[in-house]
Amino acid sequence: MSKSIFYHAGCPVCISAEQDIVDLIGKSQVEIVHLGEAKNRIDEAEKAGVKSVPALLTPNGNVLHLNFGASMADVKG
Amino acid sequence: MSKSIFYHAGCPVCISAEQDIVDLIGKSQVEIVHLGEAKNRIDEAEKAGVKSVPALLTPNGNVLHLNFGASMADVKG
Repeated sequence: MSKSIFYHAGCPVCISAEQDIVDLIGKSQVEIVHLGEAKNRIDEAEKAGVKSVPALLTPNGNVLHLNFGASMADVKG
Repeated sequence: MSKSIFYHAGCPVCISAEQDIVDLIGKSQVEIVHLGEAKNRIDEAEKAGVKSVPALLTPNGNVLHLNFGASMADVKG
């Protein structure tokens, strides 16, 4: 894995954090995944350790949970 | 302000997040501030909107709160 992955769920705080992350890391360095639209990737996100969104999965496998926006339970609902 | 500022308090989760942020953004693009050692900068951090550490203040003034480590009250104590 060479890119970071930014998981979000379309909430306002997610969109704001997404813009900040893209500005900081660079658009080519991060994949954006909207878990509300790509529900088939929720399992992958949970296995990677994502407990809330927005969250950034770094290339070395760490998960940085950003401003608390929505729990994984909310995304599934 | 052209650099980001990463505020932390030396807790294990802070150190881990610091390494991730430095790897992602680049060491030259972020100033690291240890609020436990630089207590004179707590006021500045709070005015910028930092509510917990570790947190990243972006160049455009947004605060990204990362994995919850320690409340500002704990840092002051």
